Amino acid sequence: MAAPKLDEFERIARFFAPLAAPEALGLLDDVALIEGPPGRQYVLKTDAIVEGVHFLPEDPADQVAQKLLRVNLSDLAGKSATPLGYLLTTALPRTCDEAWLERFAAGLARDQAEFGIALLGGDTVATPGPVTLSVAAIGTVRAGAAVLRSGAAPGDDVFVSGSLGDGALGLKALQGGLPALSETERAHLVDRYRLPRPRLALGQRLSGFASAMMDISDGLVADLGHLCSASGVGAEVEAARLPLSAAAAAALGAAPELMSAVLAGGDDYELLFTAQPIAAPALARLAAETGVAVTRIGSIVREPLGVQVLDGRGHRITIPVGGYRHF
Amino acid sequence: MAAPKLDEFERIARFFAPLAAPEALGLLDDVALIEGPPGRQYVLKTDAIVEGVHFLPEDPADQVAQKLLRVNLSDLAGKSATPLGYLLTTALPRTCDEAWLERFAAGLARDQAEFGIALLGGDTVATPGPVTLSVAAIGTVRAGAAVLRSGAAPGDDVFVSGSLGDGALGLKALQGGLPALSETERAHLVDRYRLPRPRLALGQRLSGFASAMMDISDGLVADLGHLCSASGVGAEVEAARLPLSAAAAAALGAAPELMSAVLAGGDDYELLFTAQPIAAPALARLAAETGVAVTRIGSIVREPLGVQVLDGRGHRITIPVGGYRHF
Repeated sequence: MAAPKLDEFERIARFFAPLAAPEALGLLDDVALIEGPPGRQYVLKTDAIVEGVHFLPEDPADQVAQKLLRVNLSDLAGKSATPLGYLLTTALPRTCDEAWLERFAAGLARDQAEFGIALLGGDTVATPGPVTLSVAAIGTVRAGAAVLRSGAAPGDDVFVSGSLGDGALGLKALQGGLPALSETERAHLVDRYRLPRPRLALGQRLSGFASAMMDISDGLVADLGHLCSASGVGAEVEAARLPLSAAAAAALGAAPELMSAVLAGGDDYELLFTAQPIAAPALARLAAETGVAVTRIGSIVREPLGVQVLDGRGHRITIPVGGYRHF
Repeated sequence: MAAPKLDEFERIARFFAPLAAPEALGLLDDVALIEGPPGRQYVLKTDAIVEGVHFLPEDPADQVAQKLLRVNLSDLAGKSATPLGYLLTTALPRTCDEAWLERFAAGLARDQAEFGIALLGGDTVATPGPVTLSVAAIGTVRAGAAVLRSGAAPGDDVFVSGSLGDGALGLKALQGGLPALSETERAHLVDRYRLPRPRLALGQRLSGFASAMMDISDGLVADLGHLCSASGVGAEVEAARLPLSAAAAAALGAAPELMSAVLAGGDDYELLFTAQPIAAPALARLAAETGVAVTRIGSIVREPLGVQVLDGRGHRITIPVGGYRHF
């Protein structure tokens, strides 16, 4: 008899967490912290993307390369780290010709210049399957300055950077959805799907202000759930406070059920963090100085555990999907 | 018109070498060296394996996990490093059930205990393609003690650890070849194919004695060619000196053309290094103390560049294949 099927997080908890080093922080933070040169720590992170799962076959190769780097850099941003470099593994089918590879490398070069990183090594293998790309990114942080997921306390406010839902809505637009939008609005959302903006400068400045932090990759509700779980607290989010781009607001105006993409769609790559209310003026200053919006979306509570999303009248909204899961 | 097809190494040279950080040593050593805690450096390495390309669908999952770790640890051994931990990316089709995963994790656990390493983090994604596994391994080495590929000089002797060809012959046995061998001989070769022996203790002790070093993964001739190229020298190898296991000797006795598997088959995961002739007594002592054979197989020459393999009469042997290449 087959065992009941475990989801991605249950598989990690059951099979991989027992293998984790102390430096892996119980696999709770999705990064490891190891000793660096005096006064510094290295932050290690790996993330993979698969054609047809995380990007579309018709996505331009340079933007695929940039997305691959940026989903990893976003995790470094969530730990207040400064990126240093990356190891790259490419498993490519024979259909990936040199024109594809040249464009892919051009995307890497562009983001190396943009983010001040360089290639530290890699492996190139052939596959009979889809394009499968993996990056192991390494960054540095002042020793003890990385903001973990486990530091949120009741009474803290919950914040996000930038805007939510653009990436998930961009994917819907690429799949032929969102007919009510203008071409400009669709282009904005598609760009946000293909090119995440790792919030590195803001993440670095938040060390000392944020009590807990992570980046949002699996959707707000799922990732805030991970932060709450690591901290042993609950969170209340007010749906009306969620920051939306003009394009996302237009999409939700035409189809309010798209709120599920904002709450649980994934592909945001924004920072999610908590801070004491007294930090509000400092956060406003950091937002102004880095040019990245910071929005208070709710509060950390002692209980109930988990994440509650409330509508304008304080009623709980039911979330249809708990974030993107791979199994 | 399509551009002429480049092989794996030409692709790396053209598209990836220009992206490399100084710490990546020009991508010549297949590892990066970055600053560590005082007096130490970190060695970073990534290697991927794909079902149907690097391992067989019927290979036991625990041994697949061990091979994945060991091919990376073998690279660390080739830089005199002590392994610390690894990041793991698994791209798994839906057919990989929990029984497979449990056995895979058991293999990781076994080798973590064997080699004193632990999991530092990872990513698990779904794929519609074959099992694709990537590890980024990290080790430490005393600052300046890593033996690079670029230090070989004319007059140095060329050495290998252990025995050559077992892995490549083991794959042939699994594919139904080598009918002349006994079951015991076949089992020995298959075991060497599935479970490489990273020569960590020997690699660490060779720092200070070896002038250049690397592990053999793509076959002796190809990898010695890489070492020669990085050092700007040539090498002469005497085929009669190549160390063979009893099983490999039996296979070659029955089918002499299998010498090509010994010279160019890949999957050896032995150390290949050069040293001045004066180091010979020290090398004999290290071999005795680590329990790993060390065999002199030839010499480094100023020219011709490249690798010459000579038969018992000093005539050059032509190598049919230049090592395993992915494209």
